[in-house]
Amino acid sequence: MNGAQALLKTLADSEIDTCFANPGTSEMQLVSAIGETPGVRAVLCLFEGVVTGAADGYARMADRPALTLLHLGSGLSNGLANLHNARRAGSAVVNVVGDHATYHLQYDAPLTSDLPGLAAWTSSWSQVAASADEMPALGAEAVCASRAGNGAIATLIAPADCAWEQSSAPATAALAAVTPAVDADHLNRLVQQLQGDRPRAFFLGGRALREDCLNTLGRIAAVTGARLICQTFPARLQRGAGRVAVERLPYFAEQATASLGGLEQLILVGCAAPVSFFAYPGKESWLTPQGCEIITLASANEDIAAALASVAQGLEANSEPAVRDAHVPDLPGDVPLNAEAIGNAIAALLPENAIIVDEGVTGGLAVYLLTEGAAPHDWLTLTGGAIGQGLPVALGAAIARPAQKVIALQADGSAMYTVQALWSMVREQTDVTVVLLNNRSYAILAIELDRVGAGADNDKTRSLLDLSRPDMDFCAIAAGLGMRASRARTGSEFAQQFRDAMATAGPCLIEAMV
Amino acid sequence: MNGAQALLKTLADSEIDTCFANPGTSEMQLVSAIGETPGVRAVLCLFEGVVTGAADGYARMADRPALTLLHLGSGLSNGLANLHNARRAGSAVVNVVGDHATYHLQYDAPLTSDLPGLAAWTSSWSQVAASADEMPALGAEAVCASRAGNGAIATLIAPADCAWEQSSAPATAALAAVTPAVDADHLNRLVQQLQGDRPRAFFLGGRALREDCLNTLGRIAAVTGARLICQTFPARLQRGAGRVAVERLPYFAEQATASLGGLEQLILVGCAAPVSFFAYPGKESWLTPQGCEIITLASANEDIAAALASVAQGLEANSEPAVRDAHVPDLPGDVPLNAEAIGNAIAALLPENAIIVDEGVTGGLAVYLLTEGAAPHDWLTLTGGAIGQGLPVALGAAIARPAQKVIALQADGSAMYTVQALWSMVREQTDVTVVLLNNRSYAILAIELDRVGAGADNDKTRSLLDLSRPDMDFCAIAAGLGMRASRARTGSEFAQQFRDAMATAGPCLIEAMV
Repeated sequence: MNGAQALLKTLADSEIDTCFANPGTSEMQLVSAIGETPGVRAVLCLFEGVVTGAADGYARMADRPALTLLHLGSGLSNGLANLHNARRAGSAVVNVVGDHATYHLQYDAPLTSDLPGLAAWTSSWSQVAASADEMPALGAEAVCASRAGNGAIATLIAPADCAWEQSSAPATAALAAVTPAVDADHLNRLVQQLQGDRPRAFFLGGRALREDCLNTLGRIAAVTGARLICQTFPARLQRGAGRVAVERLPYFAEQATASLGGLEQLILVGCAAPVSFFAYPGKESWLTPQGCEIITLASANEDIAAALASVAQGLEANSEPAVRDAHVPDLPGDVPLNAEAIGNAIAALLPENAIIVDEGVTGGLAVYLLTEGAAPHDWLTLTGGAIGQGLPVALGAAIARPAQKVIALQADGSAMYTVQALWSMVREQTDVTVVLLNNRSYAILAIELDRVGAGADNDKTRSLLDLSRPDMDFCAIAAGLGMRASRARTGSEFAQQFRDAMATAGPCLIEAMV
Repeated sequence: MNGAQALLKTLADSEIDTCFANPGTSEMQLVSAIGETPGVRAVLCLFEGVVTGAADGYARMADRPALTLLHLGSGLSNGLANLHNARRAGSAVVNVVGDHATYHLQYDAPLTSDLPGLAAWTSSWSQVAASADEMPALGAEAVCASRAGNGAIATLIAPADCAWEQSSAPATAALAAVTPAVDADHLNRLVQQLQGDRPRAFFLGGRALREDCLNTLGRIAAVTGARLICQTFPARLQRGAGRVAVERLPYFAEQATASLGGLEQLILVGCAAPVSFFAYPGKESWLTPQGCEIITLASANEDIAAALASVAQGLEANSEPAVRDAHVPDLPGDVPLNAEAIGNAIAALLPENAIIVDEGVTGGLAVYLLTEGAAPHDWLTLTGGAIGQGLPVALGAAIARPAQKVIALQADGSAMYTVQALWSMVREQTDVTVVLLNNRSYAILAIELDRVGAGADNDKTRSLLDLSRPDMDFCAIAAGLGMRASRARTGSEFAQQFRDAMATAGPCLIEAMV
């Protein structure tokens, strides 16, 4: 068996079952090895940003590493932005990046670049195979590294000759490791620190936002009087009717500061202390009030569920937690379409256990607020701020969870970064409904232009924030990529089209003209 | 004036007249400064790969640096692949990349990344501004660095507070520097080395492929018996009827080796010695015959035109060079469309001084060969092998040369990397005709899979090279991005549509079903 085959066998033995790929000439042996390795599904994506974003979405929903196959430095570079988002999400991703044969690098052929330097940008582990024999063992190491803590990015650079030369044998499979426990003494002290009546909040990210942890947090909140606040951009928040409610930290710095005002104790679970997304002239980047005590209960990479259970036990927090009541709003009527109508329709019609991937940007917040009492669902957001994450994450989430409906709530501007994802959604027969919010502008930037007090506001300035001239027609773009699509201009049109989408399996796009 | 305004004034004074941009919140002051700086055109692109590819195309045709505006590490990462191509093309590009405010970086906000590390990947010069006062001087340095030799990538990282704080004044403008001359003694020796009757060839890249240099080379070839061979992927080759003909080195290693077989002397002008694009099992990467003498006449960064003139004078090569005869083929008839029919139609109908941007991949070669005797034109190729270069380069070339027709010869697979360029072509009212070669596959990879002798050839393997299921409809995609489009299935349909396109100003797409 050659190096590529030994690597793929090792990866398959390590419970890798899906490879998102955009290969080139230097990966032909790897492509062939994927073709002949049972149990590894091959998903072709038309652009590497789709590959890496889909891997992120898969990892968020499967809680298991996804594999990517990328073509040299250029392929990896195209995938970096969504690897950045995946890193911020704590997603487990194993990249296999083909490279020139080891002896070919000296010639500086056109595609040659500093690939190890590029891999270091987002990867917590990266290695270059030096021989075919090294390929399987490094593959197992990569899987292991990707499973560290909550999940991480691991990148194996696979020179072409290491793929085509003979390799000794597959390596021992890398299986899931035990997540490190939080120190018991630390948790006992924390229980003491949570005594007394102080304005306090838990600030939540990572696994703390899963239903089981939120239930424990709900019990803890009941006895400590603490608020539960989640990161502005959680990787995966389980919410909706019957679940413990959390506040979401506002995006804009001044609103976030106001939200946290008066707190004397902030307990971090699964994330760092909140900071503003961007800096603004004359505004604070650090959002927590001066003098507020900040304590880490568990980091993102520790066993959050066990730590919370221990704290709850220490507090004798045994009562059932308060949960969100179901709220089914009326369907919107024959009114011009806006974010409120969209949110009400989605809230009313959402099936159980849907997955909502939110890259709605300015249009996303209203839908988020209006779906608080909708059927229980998972809410996935743009974790790293690199736009173009939404459609690929929806693709990957749908492949990880074929029995669950996926709704991609997608702004127009950011859709255009990785719109190629629509094609793979069709090819893979995923159950994704794309709600494309077409407002013909980078609306968030128009808001930010005003907020930062930048001087000139003339036609040339505004042209850089405007997506009209020409208007984009997302129904046509979707059709061009093989996806059925419809356009909604009123609340009732949207409700009807969304109802149809929820009742029908398979991919479709609703262009919501807002 | 603030740092952004001082920077933009300096850049405008330095003969920067076009900025390709995809900005975000951290660039709002820069956007505003562009808006109020006369003489700097702002071109919004929907994805950063379009931004950087357009800058490359602009620089190739304008022989002057283009400016880009990018959003933090994620924006730069999305633009890296086409910066890699631009670097290989020897294009002058100045990137201004916004970053978080200097004091904000410590908080590791979601978009924070190692931006200087990323900039180093393709830039020959990169600096981070530390204050608003530094912005204009560093801008001038960047322009200067981008003009080094043939052209280079220079990246200025501009933290948001350096843009919004007050700056003292614009810096002294950076104007074009003198290109270094080749040492006269070296050229005199070379004249001696060119004496005698040996199998020899000039291997040409960079500025050597412009009409004036080719004329000199034609005269030199006449007295030295040398062949003229150009790089497989030239940045800009001036060719067609009435121009000195050059052979193009074949892409596949075995064909390139055969082409160079028997040479005893290879004289390099504007490029390095040829090597194979990829390595293949059992094949040589080094293409020049063993024992062949290799001499550099001038590097890409030296004054090639003057060096060639000096050599021609030393050789007393005064006769007019042989040039290509005009050849106008018959238009294709009512036959199923293929690359030959497309090549003949383009050759017959090409207007004078057109610019052909070739990312036709497997479909491009026939068109190249069939247009050898077409009206004189510029041929621009994929210099760095990172696909997704064609449409953006066509956009930039059209903006640099509004009076010349641009034809983007574009394969389907690579079109999908940066298809967003169509929208900017429409918005900017460019005179680009996209000839979209739709063969529903990564055809080059199917060839390579056979060539590398990879084992498995099953449905799963082939699915990773196949672009059907679903078929893409590029007329619909173009319509979605505001561009008029038509589909050709026969030679006569293509000829009619291409004739119409040549007769009509403005952007359009012809989907050639091959």
